[in-house]
This record gives sequence, structure tokens and C-alpha cells, in this order.
Amino acid sequence: MKPQIEAVIDQALRRRAHQVIPGGMWGHQNAASLPPGYPQFFSRAEGCRVWDVDGREYVDLMCSWGPIVLGHRHTAVDAAYQRQAADGVCLNGPAPVLVELAELLVDQIAHADWAMFQKNGSDATTTCVTLARAGTGRRKVLVARGSYHGAVPWCSPSLVGVTSEDRAHVITYDYNDIDSVHAAVQQAGNDLAAIMVTAFRHDMGRDQEMPTLAFAQALRAAASQADAALIVDDVRAGFRLHAGGSWELLGVRPDLSSFSKAIANGYPLAAVTGNERFREAASRLYVTGSFWCEAPTMAAAVATQRALSADAAIEHMTAMGQRLRGGLDRLARQAGVGLRQTGPVQMPMVLFDDDADNAKGRAFCSAALQAGAYFHPRHNMFLSAAHQAEDIDRALLAAEAGFDVLVKLGKSTG
Amino acid sequence: MKPQIEAVIDQALRRRAHQVIPGGMWGHQNAASLPPGYPQFFSRAEGCRVWDVDGREYVDLMCSWGPIVLGHRHTAVDAAYQRQAADGVCLNGPAPVLVELAELLVDQIAHADWAMFQKNGSDATTTCVTLARAGTGRRKVLVARGSYHGAVPWCSPSLVGVTSEDRAHVITYDYNDIDSVHAAVQQAGNDLAAIMVTAFRHDMGRDQEMPTLAFAQALRAAASQADAALIVDDVRAGFRLHAGGSWELLGVRPDLSSFSKAIANGYPLAAVTGNERFREAASRLYVTGSFWCEAPTMAAAVATQRALSADAAIEHMTAMGQRLRGGLDRLARQAGVGLRQTGPVQMPMVLFDDDADNAKGRAFCSAALQAGAYFHPRHNMFLSAAHQAEDIDRALLAAEAGFDVLVKLGKSTG
Repeated sequence: MKPQIEAVIDQALRRRAHQVIPGGMWGHQNAASLPPGYPQFFSRAEGCRVWDVDGREYVDLMCSWGPIVLGHRHTAVDAAYQRQAADGVCLNGPAPVLVELAELLVDQIAHADWAMFQKNGSDATTTCVTLARAGTGRRKVLVARGSYHGAVPWCSPSLVGVTSEDRAHVITYDYNDIDSVHAAVQQAGNDLAAIMVTAFRHDMGRDQEMPTLAFAQALRAAASQADAALIVDDVRAGFRLHAGGSWELLGVRPDLSSFSKAIANGYPLAAVTGNERFREAASRLYVTGSFWCEAPTMAAAVATQRALSADAAIEHMTAMGQRLRGGLDRLARQAGVGLRQTGPVQMPMVLFDDDADNAKGRAFCSAALQAGAYFHPRHNMFLSAAHQAEDIDRALLAAEAGFDVLVKLGKSTG
Repeated sequence: MKPQIEAVIDQALRRRAHQVIPGGMWGHQNAASLPPGYPQFFSRAEGCRVWDVDGREYVDLMCSWGPIVLGHRHTAVDAAYQRQAADGVCLNGPAPVLVELAELLVDQIAHADWAMFQKNGSDATTTCVTLARAGTGRRKVLVARGSYHGAVPWCSPSLVGVTSEDRAHVITYDYNDIDSVHAAVQQAGNDLAAIMVTAFRHDMGRDQEMPTLAFAQALRAAASQADAALIVDDVRAGFRLHAGGSWELLGVRPDLSSFSKAIANGYPLAAVTGNERFREAASRLYVTGSFWCEAPTMAAAVATQRALSADAAIEHMTAMGQRLRGGLDRLARQAGVGLRQTGPVQMPMVLFDDDADNAKGRAFCSAALQAGAYFHPRHNMFLSAAHQAEDIDRALLAAEAGFDVLVKLGKSTG
């Protein structure tokens, strides 16, 4: 293994950041919980490569935690943004591209009769919940235990600063457990507003699970029977599994969906789509934000959606994901290391057997990072349409360094 | 008065929008509640002028409802955005510009020892409340009756889809009424987390009020005595009244502030700033968003803040605001129309006497719009540093058309 290059600039920036940002960084992009060697600060990105501030280049397997779906600096998307920005960024109302984007999503997303736009995934999930309450006149919302729906008080994975009232009407069930759904529905009684579910189970630090068809159908049936909203939270998975909404793979259609992350290839946007059942309620809702009509990002979203289709991006990501998964399986077998790869191949999760404390995952990732690939030890990863076979092979070469470390660790502890 | 040009393109876009967007548009940029003739869709903007989709040009007195503080398409800001965007929009973590922006705000904002960034004003106000609860271990939050702090359930001006639990710990007082503050503090008992207040009273449809010094000092004293957070919500006013936080005009310093709108001249950003008292709690908070580290917008914010200072933008907006206010007063006197202009001149509010149903305001605005100036009948307006004397005079010329209509109305009804 090459000697670790000193991350001099990253360290200096971290020291400055600690003075002016609480804890040096907030939220999911705080590198403090990442393995040794992971940078906090990045200088640039191109296609499927990122460079940290010390000039180290990585094959990027996080895609900015989801937003980058066509690759960094995608020509057509950036050009669409800039063309629109030449007419101004934020006006007294929307530009025509708002209508174009809403029409595009309504055409493309199977269940959608209408769309609204926001800036954060949390905006979209919160709007779905508020809208379900407005449309049903009821209050209870069912969510799967451990599912991530955002970082605002009603759904945050942290309870710091959260009051019990923030979650007064949230009832949990277990993902892929139909009995637990029925129990939760019963608990909601005649006050059920919505059943919310992530497109698949992508909880941090555990094996991913696709929803079973029976589970998806049971949620749909339970919501329909109560005339409540079925909400698919597609913020993380949307536009990577299926352009028409991730549950099109199952043929099960929600009433409402939340989208964000990949919708505009890195430009900040979120969307709620819904069916006729909730249109009137949506028109009564007061939800808004200072920048929700900002037009260049909407132009970027239109270009992103068109490129996804024109470039057969989902098919390509799937092929690249299979190459990565197959390669990692082969390397693991060769090294005699037990690992589990779960969920859709274009959103890889790699966890090691007998690794409750994630020590193996961290050692693997640390070594792979030094060797030039940015893996994550506990969170699902993301591929983009910019990943080509040679990039995957480059990542697999870096992974070999990770497996070598695990083999040595196994010998020293075994 | 010129005959009204048919807004053919706007009407066609509205018809399309009604198919794919609930009610045709959401939130504060929905033109449905504006007077006759107001466009819903805009095509472009430059400096202090905006063009609707039918090609009609207006002197812009809304500045996109606040974000545009230097004028549309400001050269230095747009260049800063584009330079950063050439290195990628959204990466696996922040770029160095995050630290640069946090340092700049900590230098510039009197009470600030640290900063965190978000995308919506509502993100910033909600983060302040969650943080106050985390830092005090208490729950009650005091807000002024009728003040706008965002469009999420705990504070939305609408109750559609909102549950009583969403506001369980919100207690109201009256702006500039010290006795009502003391009563609210008493009601909170030993559970007071925060007193929140907008930088000045800028409620829709009523005369604006600056906070009295005694009121501001009373809020500060009440918060300090309870070891609770004083939160100044500077989302709407920030960077138009004072670069160091609007309450620097009073010499009263909050513990936490929320900023957004003008922070990056139209690019989507929000910020929370705080003092040492709340740094540790802020480091424990889990708040995050997919695009909160998006770097080009931060570069735009740095450039915006530098230009605000270098161009003496606040002084210029104040002078232009005085010119507008003086001109409107003169025209009103000449026309024999009673009107009230309240609040800071760079954020004008114009309301007419004996106009409970806003009919005069709407008639005035409708006529002024036809004559080429975009006024708002009920919401405070905004000036930018791009407004020059000739633009204000152009707006005043349009206002004359508005006063003419009011004079005719007065004669027909009087």
C-alpha cells in the first residue's frame, strides 16, 4: 500500500471550519464519522471522478449522496441551466419552464396527474404528509421503523431538539412485514391519513431489501380501503430504478410521491407528484419557499430527465452496478472474505459478515480510498450514467487493496 | 391609459399549468390573488427590470419577493457562481467556499460566532427553533401573532393539513407590546426555549412597524433571564437594513438569527447564525439536506455580501427608497388620496386610507402595472441596489396612472 499522502489542505480547512461551524460540519456530509483518511472538503468533480482539496482523485461511488445521476458536469444539463440563468435566476413568479417540467413529470410518472416543486427532499416528504392530512381530514401517518424521510422534527433520525408532539401522529410498522402494517392501520383507527414507504428499504448500516410484491400490494390495499394516501418516498431512489417512479417495477401506484436528489443532476430541486384524488387538497395547501420557482434549476431538471431517457441511463447504471457487484463478489471469494451486497445494483450496499462494529467495513473503505475509490462503509452508494466499465474496474482495483487489508486483519486476529 | 395588451402567452401558460399543477400555481407566487392584469409567468429580468412572457417590461418593485438585492443578473455574483460551478455543482462534501462564507458571516454579523447553511427560509427558522430546544432542554417558543416565519406546519399562516400538536408549544405575543411578551413568558413557565421575532413587523396587509428599542430590549432581557434563546428571524429583512443583522440598528443582539432571501442575490440559500451559548447544541443537532453544501450558491453568497459592502448597496437602496416614498407622498397629496407608507424605505409598504377591502390598493396597482411598474397591493415590496433615480422616477410616472384611477374612483363613488 502506498504511504498515505498527508491531507494538509483538508486538515487546515477543518481547523478553520471548527471555528465558524458547530462541530466543523453538520449532517450527512460530516466526515467525522467516516473512516480514517476520508476528506471533508472537495475541490472539483468531472464525470464519475471527484478530487479532494489535496488533489487526490477518486472514482466516485457516492455521487454526492445521490444527486449526481448523469455524472458531474453533464454538458446538456449544465448548458440548460446556463441558458435559463442568462434570463435571470429568480423572478417575481415562475418561468414557462415550470409548466414544461410539470408536464414532463406528469407524462413520465405513471401515477402523476400533477406536480409541485420544492428545494429539499424534506420539503417534499413534509408536503406529502400535510397534503394527505388536508385531503383526508385525518391525522395518523404510518412509516416504517428506521426508514429515513428527512431531517426535520417529525421524521428526523435524531431526537435532539425534537418534542414528543412533533411525532404525535406517527405510527410505525416494519418494512416488508404485512402483519405489522395491519396492526398499525388498526392502531390508527378512523384517523388514518397516509401510509408512507420508501421505494425500497435503504436504512443506514443494514442490508437493503426490495419491497415484496405482496407487501406493496398490501400497503396499496390498506390505504385504498381507508381512503388514505399511499405515499412512496422516492427521494433517494427516484430516477435510478425507473423513470416513472420506483414502484412501477412492481406495478403498484401510490397516490403521492416525493422526489428530489437525482431529479436535476445536482441542482437543488424536489418534487411532489400526485393523482386526481389529492389535486383539490393540494390546491388548498399553503406551501412555498423563496426559491421554489427559481427557473434555471427547473431547466436543468428537464434536461436531466431527457438525458436519462435518451442515454438509457438507468439501463447503463444497472449494467455498471452488475459489473461492480460481480467484481466485488469475485474478489471477496478470492480473499475468503464474507460480504453481502443488497438492494438494486445501481444503489450498492456492501456490508461484511461478522462486522457488527463496522470495523471491517471501515478498514476496507479506508484502504480502497487510499487506492483511489470512494466507497461508503454503512450507507448505500450510488452509481451514475458516467461510470464506464474502466471506472468500475478501477474501483475494483482499489477494492483489492481493501480486501488485502481484511485478509491481513483476519490473519492477525484469526 | 393605454389599452390593456392581451396577455395571450400568460393565459395560455395558465391553462396548461392548471392541468399539471394544483390550482395552477402554489404559494406566495400564485398570481390568482393579485389584481387584474398581473402576469403569472415571467420570461426574463435585468437589473431592476422584469419582463413577463408577453414581453411587457416593468420596473420591478418586488425583487422576486426579496432575494434580488443587487439587481437581476449581477455581473460579479453570476461570475462567482459560474466559476465555482465549473468545478461541479454538488460534491460528496462541501468545497472550501463553505468555510470562506461562514468566516465572512461571522466577521460581518455582530452576534455570530458560527454559521450553518440551508436552502429555504423555513429551514433556517425551523433549525433555530429545534436548536433552541436542544440548547435549553425546554419546549415553548414565543412568536408574535401574525408574524410570518415560514410555510411549514409549526408556523404556516394556513391551518390546512396542520394538526394542533404541530403548534403545541407555540405561544403568541403581540409585536411591540411588552406586556404581552411578559404574559407569554409567564405562560411558558419553566419551559421557555426561545423568543422569536421578525426583524421588524412586516405582516401582510397591515402597516409595517419598526420594533421600539424598549420592545427589543425587553425581549432580550426576558430571554436572558430565562436562559432561553432570542431568535431574530431576519429571513425577509436581512442584508437590506444592516449587513450585520437588522437588530444592529437597535444595538440588541440575538442568540440565533435566520437569514435567507437576499443572502445570495437570488441563488437558493439560507443561513442560521448563532453565538457561543448555542454552539455545542448546534453541533449535536441533526439537520441536513441533499443540496445544503452545493458550492456555487455559496460562492454567489460570498460575492453578494462583498458587493453589498463595496457598492454601499444598503445606503443606495435607502436613498432610492426615500425618493420613492417622497414621490408617492407628493403624488398622493396632489391627487388628494390618503395613503400610508410604513417600515424601512428600502422595503416599502403602501396602503391606502379607508381601504379595508384593498379595492383602492388593487385599482392603484393594476393601473400602475399597465403603466410599467410592478407594485404589490398588500405585501411589503423590495428595492435593490440596481434601482437608480431614473427607475424610481419611471415607477412614479406609472404610479401617477394609479392615482388617476383612484381620483376617478373617488369621483364616481364620492
